Amino acid sequence: MKYIPKKEMDFKEPIVITGFPGMGLVGNIAAHKIAKDLNLDFVGYFDSPEVPPIMAVEEGILYPPIRVYANENMIVIYSEVLIPQKSVYELADEIMNYIGTKNPKILINLDGITSLNPKKTYMVSASENMLKSMEHENIEILDFGMAGGLAGIITVRCGDKDIPSVCLMAETNGLRPDPKGASNLITILNEIYNLDVNTEDLLKEDKAIKEKLKKLAEEQMKLLSKQKVENPMYM
Amino acid sequence: MKYIPKKEMDFKEPIVITGFPGMGLVGNIAAHKIAKDLNLDFVGYFDSPEVPPIMAVEEGILYPPIRVYANENMIVIYSEVLIPQKSVYELADEIMNYIGTKNPKILINLDGITSLNPKKTYMVSASENMLKSMEHENIEILDFGMAGGLAGIITVRCGDKDIPSVCLMAETNGLRPDPKGASNLITILNEIYNLDVNTEDLLKEDKAIKEKLKKLAEEQMKLLSKQKVENPMYM
Amino acid sequence: MKYIPKKEMDFKEPIVITGFPGMGLVGNIAAHKIAKDLNLDFVGYFDSPEVPPIMAVEEGILYPPIRVYANENMIVIYSEVLIPQKSVYELADEIMNYIGTKNPKILINLDGITSLNPKKTYMVSASENMLKSMEHENIEILDFGMAGGLAGIITVRCGDKDIPSVCLMAETNGLRPDPKGASNLITILNEIYNLDVNTEDLLKEDKAIKEKLKKLAEEQMKLLSKQKVENPMYM
Amino acid sequence: MKYIPKKEMDFKEPIVITGFPGMGLVGNIAAHKIAKDLNLDFVGYFDSPEVPPIMAVEEGILYPPIRVYANENMIVIYSEVLIPQKSVYELADEIMNYIGTKNPKILINLDGITSLNPKKTYMVSASENMLKSMEHENIEILDFGMAGGLAGIITVRCGDKDIPSVCLMAETNGLRPDPKGASNLITILNEIYNLDVNTEDLLKEDKAIKEKLKKLAEEQMKLLSKQKVENPMYM
Amino acid sequence: MKYIPKKEMDFKEPIVITGFPGMGLVGNIAAHKIAKDLNLDFVGYFDSPEVPPIMAVEEGILYPPIRVYANENMIVIYSEVLIPQKSVYELADEIMNYIGTKNPKILINLDGITSLNPKKTYMVSASENMLKSMEHENIEILDFGMAGGLAGIITVRCGDKDIPSVCLMAETNGLRPDPKGASNLITILNEIYNLDVNTEDLLKEDKAIKEKLKKLAEEQMKLLSKQKVENPMYM
Repeated sequence: MKYIPKKEMDFKEPIVITGFPGMGLVGNIAAHKIAKDLNLDFVGYFDSPEVPPIMAVEEGILYPPIRVYANENMIVIYSEVLIPQKSVYELADEIMNYIGTKNPKILINLDGITSLNPKKTYMVSASENMLKSMEHENIEILDFGMAGGLAGIITVRCGDKDIPSVCLMAETNGLRPDPKGASNLITILNEIYNLDVNTEDLLKEDKAIKEKLKKLAEEQMKLLSKQKVENPMYM
Repeated sequence: MKYIPKKEMDFKEPIVITGFPGMGLVGNIAAHKIAKDLNLDFVGYFDSPEVPPIMAVEEGILYPPIRVYANENMIVIYSEVLIPQKSVYELADEIMNYIGTKNPKILINLDGITSLNPKKTYMVSASENMLKSMEHENIEILDFGMAGGLAGIITVRCGDKDIPSVCLMAETNGLRPDPKGASNLITILNEIYNLDVNTEDLLKEDKAIKEKLKKLAEEQMKLLSKQKVENPMYM
Repeated sequence: MKYIPKKEMDFKEPIVITGFPGMGLVGNIAAHKIAKDLNLDFVGYFDSPEVPPIMAVEEGILYPPIRVYANENMIVIYSEVLIPQKSVYELADEIMNYIGTKNPKILINLDGITSLNPKKTYMVSASENMLKSMEHENIEILDFGMAGGLAGIITVRCGDKDIPSVCLMAETNGLRPDPKGASNLITILNEIYNLDVNTEDLLKEDKAIKEKLKKLAEEQMKLLSKQKVENPMYM
Repeated sequence: MKYIPKKEMDFKEPIVITGFPGMGLVGNIAAHKIAKDLNLDFVGYFDSPEVPPIMAVEEGILYPPIRVYANENMIVIYSEVLIPQKSVYELADEIMNYIGTKNPKILINLDGITSLNPKKTYMVSASENMLKSMEHENIEILDFGMAGGLAGIITVRCGDKDIPSVCLMAETNGLRPDPKGASNLITILNEIYNLDVNTEDLLKEDKAIKEKLKKLAEEQMKLLSKQKVENPMYM
Repeated sequence: MKYIPKKEMDFKEPIVITGFPGMGLVGNIAAHKIAKDLNLDFVGYFDSPEVPPIMAVEEGILYPPIRVYANENMIVIYSEVLIPQKSVYELADEIMNYIGTKNPKILINLDGITSLNPKKTYMVSASENMLKSMEHENIEILDFGMAGGLAGIITVRCGDKDIPSVCLMAETNGLRPDPKGASNLITILNEIYNLDVNTEDLLKEDKAIKEKLKKLAEEQMKLLSKQKVENPMYM
């Protein structure tokens, strides 16, 4: 796995936000929205032969799966393609290498946590100090549970390297793409960092987003089943 | 994986066309037809132990799965054998190595995209300029979606290396070998590059092609099941 | 796989206790309880890309799966995440490397053994002398059977390196998390080493522990199924 | 994978015949019969940890799976054990290394091709010249199809190295060991190369061969299921 | 995979006996009995991360799976744990390395062969001379068949290195642990080598052995299923 740069950028202690497919896809929906609304540049991508070869298309332009968008003050790293378990640690290490040279202010890793009655947003960190400094009336500290995947590993690795990091987890049903959960995460980030990411159109677009994501999912299932069929000739 | 040359060729900024098994097999059906009708020479092949050992037979001659046909001005790379997902990136890299020294004019990667009512042909690229320069009344820019497999990866890699490249995707049902979708791709290439590839006999042969491909598929299924059976003696 | 230190510690011939998920989870329930009640510090963890990326959360703090807690006189190594069979030997070797420099007094490896009527606690060792020196009215020597997993391998490796070691196995039903079996192990260790680990609240908490562990298990199953689903978009 | 020599031999531009398990097992039945009837010496074998560890017994003598028999003028390479797909390319390369130093006159790779009404024998080659020089009234050139496995790969590799080679494929039902298909291949080779391999007893023994091969297959299935069962103690 | 020595021994052209789990487990039951009755010392073991981590317990002492017992004149190598197919060749090579320096008189590899009416004992070898020198009224030469697994590979390897070796195979039902088949092998070895291994108690213990092995098998199945379950928390 390696990082392929597409554009130079001078970073000034950027805030780093990651969002990878998890419960309700809230992490990547939120990250993608932030990158779009703040007009961040596509600055590079992480390339790995282990990740399914599914490229995203936006307005005719083809993008590799694991993308980095940025301006001087913010870096957003996300993927719409699920990272296979065997690549998760490797990608976490590459992300740590990448941000290690950028002198980040903080890493905020976005994810979902399942709930039958989704309302809250939780945080966890590898560092007690982070829990104190990120105190917010709309964020609860998760007392006991599990955090899996990239969000969890990156947060632990940051703790090892004394890089400030939290994992923010929005409650979600977990069965459907959940723009509401994503918007809860964005609302909190808007408040803390004075951003101006539009959650209303995310909610308005809820129905349209779900249909688009559903269509994408179907196409991906077909692509991936086709990959698996050992009959090369007869489709 | 490596490239095995079979014949020398002096290239003059060739157009490169790739077609690998995808939806409706439109990519490889089109690529194969182009190579045959333009009488391109069999100049080499990509060899990989990861690709199922299925050799094609044409008029008594045995061919390895991933073939390169060419004349001075055109290179066609295709396969009738499905490339396993774990080899796709490696093959893309070998193809990039191969064409990197040939100073290509453009890479056109042919594939299919599923549709319930197949009519259109779409294009995507990693470069905005390419979308402009390839404007054509019969090609629509795909606004939102996914492009998987070799066609997608090669197009992205070309973007990274500033090699002009598009992915052309013909709508297709996706369940059957689709010579109609293949002929739509060929028609567009005929128009843009002033080629003379015969689409009528592709359509006339539609029934015959499907029976041949179906027969090939059955033989391949048997070959591949046989490979998998752990009973060496009793077939 | 490697060891990531988090905190320095001066060890004085420590007793080392290991507890990994096995029958009834008695090993890791006991080890976790010992670490908590004796207020041991979190001193480091074993990191491996082969182990599922599931981080534990306790009071808002995120922990990697395979943890080491310690004070000067005791080291407790445990995990709540099942170690895949292909990583078990590697982790055993890393643990042997780690404790090899600590001049341990003894390694006590905790595990469960299935029984329809769970009452007893057994011990086995790679060394006859160990069986004699660990004689205790509440420990029976296992005459004939099998001991699998990390507890067994570590005990054998200690025998190879002349490091005193036993494997203590509490009888358990094996189907449910079994705090009772864990408390039997703790009671014996309290007696032999004059510890003061509270088994009453372990038993009182039995119902609550089971519900918590059950909830964790469900979340983990979801996490792990999500990892496995190849549909990145539609959850 | 490597070649283990058992006996020295001075080769004089030998004819090389290969026969590996394929449709109807015609390739290896024919190759085995040729080696026996011409009293060729067991000169060595190809050894690979990837091939199932199943040794053949003939008259009390134990043989490894992939064997080479020879005299000065002929080399026969065959196996009764199915070569796993992932080892096929590697074995083809080892065979090419082996015969590369023997200055062979021709490589004839024997295999089966499925047919509902098996009668014919086909040939394919990587070289047009070979098709001309091997013209025979009882061999048809296969116009269109697939040739899989070792027979196909070896024939293609010989084409790359300018070593004369054909693949001869006897039509067969493909479901049962087919001594009739094997005898058709032998008859053609007897005619072309003036050999004296007895096909009558192959046909007479048809029933006995099938029972023997069936018994072998059952024993192998048991051996291979035993290998796969993870219960080491209770069979 | 490597050999871990536990005790020094001066060997005087020892007879080497191997017995690994196969049909009816006759090989390892016989080998284990010989090691016990002749009071051989536990001198070392073969260690491999590919072999399931299942340690045997005998009288409170924990043993690794693949053990070597010996005195000056005899070496017995056996395992109660089934060796995975992918490790079989590697273990055979390690065993050949180990015995290669011991100047063995002969290697006798014990295994079972299935029969509906088990009575006989067969032998095979890679060497004609061995069949002659091991002639015995109670041993039949196997005319035609298959010998799989370690017994077969070791016998072939010994043939390659001119080390005298036979494979002795007792007929067995193959479904149950078969102390009767094991005792047939022992009886023949008692006669040829003037040993004094007690077969009566093996037969008397038949019922008890089967219950013990059955219990072991159940525990192993549980251990191995536990290893496979991806739910670390909820057993």
